[in-house]
Amino acid sequence: MEPPERFVLRPIGRVESPLTDRAAAPRQGHEGSPDAVVVLDDDVAEAARDLVVGADAIVLTWLDRADRGVLLTRPRDDPARPPTGVFSTRSPDRPNPVGLHRVRIRSIDGTRIGVADLEALDGTPVIDVKAVLDLPGDH
Amino acid sequence: MEPPERFVLRPIGRVESPLTDRAAAPRQGHEGSPDAVVVLDDDVAEAARDLVVGADAIVLTWLDRADRGVLLTRPRDDPARPPTGVFSTRSPDRPNPVGLHRVRIRSIDGTRIGVADLEALDGTPVIDVKAVLDLPGDH
Repeated sequence: MEPPERFVLRPIGRVESPLTDRAAAPRQGHEGSPDAVVVLDDDVAEAARDLVVGADAIVLTWLDRADRGVLLTRPRDDPARPPTGVFSTRSPDRPNPVGLHRVRIRSIDGTRIGVADLEALDGTPVIDVKAVLDLPGDH
Repeated sequence: MEPPERFVLRPIGRVESPLTDRAAAPRQGHEGSPDAVVVLDDDVAEAARDLVVGADAIVLTWLDRADRGVLLTRPRDDPARPPTGVFSTRSPDRPNPVGLHRVRIRSIDGTRIGVADLEALDGTPVIDVKAVLDLPGDH
């Protein structure tokens, strides 16, 4: 039997945020996240050189405090709601805890990208930044 | 010195698609991808139990044929365009080649989820399925 297949991510940076407590964090960025900074590693600076203040971007994070064994969850931790398969939610608890965040770029200072609407906790590893596609079928 | 930090993803399924050639694949799902099937592993079936035909979903894939050393790319492989930092693009070539796809669910047959608008190549590993949030600040 072959060993199970695995893929290895490397952090490309880190979130700096006043949010430090999962229980107190907003569930989604538009629910009032404080401004945060995506601090990129120097060795990926070139990949970030065309980011623009005022534009939106997609940030992927590694939700390192998630429970990867969870398949069913109650949305928004609301005990009145029925357990729901995690693939129908945005719960951080899921087999591969990749966080998906649409943010607005507020400032750029070298590899420090100031953003609005990023609900990740302080210290959360960043694994990717992508363009937003404002087109039909956008992601 | 500490060893570099790494995060390990496990495939949770696989794309079945008539698309087999990266050069011929559409750049984005809305540009005419054929229907595809996300075939989930049996051990995550419970996480998928609340997916619904007709709904949109976000699928994350592992773009296993990408070049992870690329930091600058020409959008759409167009030689007339200047090299652009990959974090301002959707190029599969980037340090962590996670693909982000908004799809529409066309059919559900056990762990076989038929979808429209998935531009991934046949055999591409699937790493996550998430809810679409149709709200301001949606991802």
